Amino acid sequence: MHKHDVDTPALLLDLDAVETNIRTMAEFLAGKPASLRPHFKTPKCPEVARRQLEAGAIGITVAKLGEAEVLADAGLGPILMANEVVGPQKIDRLMALLSRGVDITVAVESAFNIQELADGAKRSGQRPAAIIEVDSGMHRCGTAEPRETVELARALVDAGIEYRGIMGYEGHAVLIADEEERREKTEAALAIVQEHVEALAEAGLPAGIVSVGGTGSHEIAATHPHVTELQAGSYVFMDGRYQEVLPRRFQGALTLLTTVLSVRDRYAVADAGMKSLTNEFGPPFSVDGGVKVARLSEEHATLTGEGIASLRPGDRIEVVPSHGDTTLNLHDRYHVVRGDEVVDEWPILAARKFK
Amino acid sequence: MHKHDVDTPALLLDLDAVETNIRTMAEFLAGKPASLRPHFKTPKCPEVARRQLEAGAIGITVAKLGEAEVLADAGLGPILMANEVVGPQKIDRLMALLSRGVDITVAVESAFNIQELADGAKRSGQRPAAIIEVDSGMHRCGTAEPRETVELARALVDAGIEYRGIMGYEGHAVLIADEEERREKTEAALAIVQEHVEALAEAGLPAGIVSVGGTGSHEIAATHPHVTELQAGSYVFMDGRYQEVLPRRFQGALTLLTTVLSVRDRYAVADAGMKSLTNEFGPPFSVDGGVKVARLSEEHATLTGEGIASLRPGDRIEVVPSHGDTTLNLHDRYHVVRGDEVVDEWPILAARKFK
Repeated sequence: MHKHDVDTPALLLDLDAVETNIRTMAEFLAGKPASLRPHFKTPKCPEVARRQLEAGAIGITVAKLGEAEVLADAGLGPILMANEVVGPQKIDRLMALLSRGVDITVAVESAFNIQELADGAKRSGQRPAAIIEVDSGMHRCGTAEPRETVELARALVDAGIEYRGIMGYEGHAVLIADEEERREKTEAALAIVQEHVEALAEAGLPAGIVSVGGTGSHEIAATHPHVTELQAGSYVFMDGRYQEVLPRRFQGALTLLTTVLSVRDRYAVADAGMKSLTNEFGPPFSVDGGVKVARLSEEHATLTGEGIASLRPGDRIEVVPSHGDTTLNLHDRYHVVRGDEVVDEWPILAARKFK
Repeated sequence: MHKHDVDTPALLLDLDAVETNIRTMAEFLAGKPASLRPHFKTPKCPEVARRQLEAGAIGITVAKLGEAEVLADAGLGPILMANEVVGPQKIDRLMALLSRGVDITVAVESAFNIQELADGAKRSGQRPAAIIEVDSGMHRCGTAEPRETVELARALVDAGIEYRGIMGYEGHAVLIADEEERREKTEAALAIVQEHVEALAEAGLPAGIVSVGGTGSHEIAATHPHVTELQAGSYVFMDGRYQEVLPRRFQGALTLLTTVLSVRDRYAVADAGMKSLTNEFGPPFSVDGGVKVARLSEEHATLTGEGIASLRPGDRIEVVPSHGDTTLNLHDRYHVVRGDEVVDEWPILAARKFK
């Protein structure tokens, strides 16, 4: 089937680009100190994660239990959850994963949460494994000082939870377009992580896992002496925003196919709105020359530019999502293409796992 | 079950507020010339649409075939699709609905699309019904001049498609906060619709259906002499943005329950990010005094304000989505509450129907 025969709006995934990106990252990391545990929030699809593991990834990183459950069902891992598991319902879901023999490490950053994990372990007879989340400058979750990290590591050991190391995600640096500024911010973040690593070692609690690094910072983080693994995920699809930040190494793999509904004098309208295409990183980029997306409403994209003169209702056009991760979260499948041919359909299983 | 025992992030729907809003709208419209055919894009849930029909709605308005298919499966209608059905895959889906005996009217605004419908009718042996979409000032889809509307009405009749009238949605007016300006823009839009209605009548093609009106314009449109029905949908839940525009008549029914993951000196973090809560209308509003949402990342809300001093990890808080329609589109169910008690769970069936 030709890709233009897919009903719209539809996510197209270019398999050649995906395979090239996976190979490129594996080749870049060969011989470097850091391994790759790619983030599952980008593909949300076991078919992609399986290819990443086959290319040498040491496991998969997730943002939430729903993603971990999808991976566990697919038999993929080991899993690192780069986020806290808080609240009794989620603690029970984590224990259920452990009771299935799933190798999952979760992040902690408060004594309250360590107590919750310890209580859950006692109730279930399971032994959770954890790393400590360090705030390396993003100011979201994470410990503020090495002293706090050491205390939490000790609390983990005292609670009988397996202490595996630390993580620090420099999310405030990865999307900086200026290469020099991105490098500076990333190195400052890695220096903070290093302070925590050194404090832990001095306290006799050496960090086995030191997990950092997004797609925008992977080149710098991969050779940092204390880093053991990278969480980078976006490299596999490279959405519109990341193509601007990091234009050379990886290829864009994700587009949204849309149908022109209306052509008027000064604009045209296609069936791609905020319910199939997010715009928190700005309007989607166009693939087809001369047409740009001026505005998204819930179910419509208003197109402007010289290219609209050659459009007709019923035409199919492809646009590049500015933010892939939130866009694919709206869809239930990828239409997998090689060139113009649809060769497969992959369910985006974790898009429905919002918890 | 207490609402705070639901796993998070979770959409809570206040059933008392929903019932009050449905009753309030029915009472307001009693004796007025216009009927209500509420838009399904807001609830995306047959349980809500059924209550609206029981309260006197003459049918349900939808934005796309996926919503119509959900309603058809639930046996609810008659359906008005306030949007065009373009492309061979969708024409076939429309014919499949007609072959099931579903009463559905679709919008058209081009000769190309009328030909598509006629061809589909010929292939399937079905007889589609259509209204003409008029551009009443929003500049999205829709005819630009009465002459064009008359031509398309004639083309429908000539093609053997049942011609049922026109629609014009004043989406550029409904969210204007200033009441006087909203009234002016709405009246200007209704005057444009009226020109088209009169031209059709003069041409011997009287419009049976004249469908207009969102929640922000329903009071003005309900008494306009040419309007036969309103499409208003948001009134039933009243999201954060609409509560600012139209604070008196309807009650907010939709909140997102979220769990505090981290509490730091100057901010706290909860598990509600852009994958469970949209922010194209700005950050979500807070329910709990003194806490505001400063930033959303994909899976986190960063909270600031005086109220964070009393927060602890594990606390549950509720926030009001600024844009309900796109937020509920991310979820698969409503946790239906009366007061603090969860009394039911309703699937958001149409959230997965993105085409």
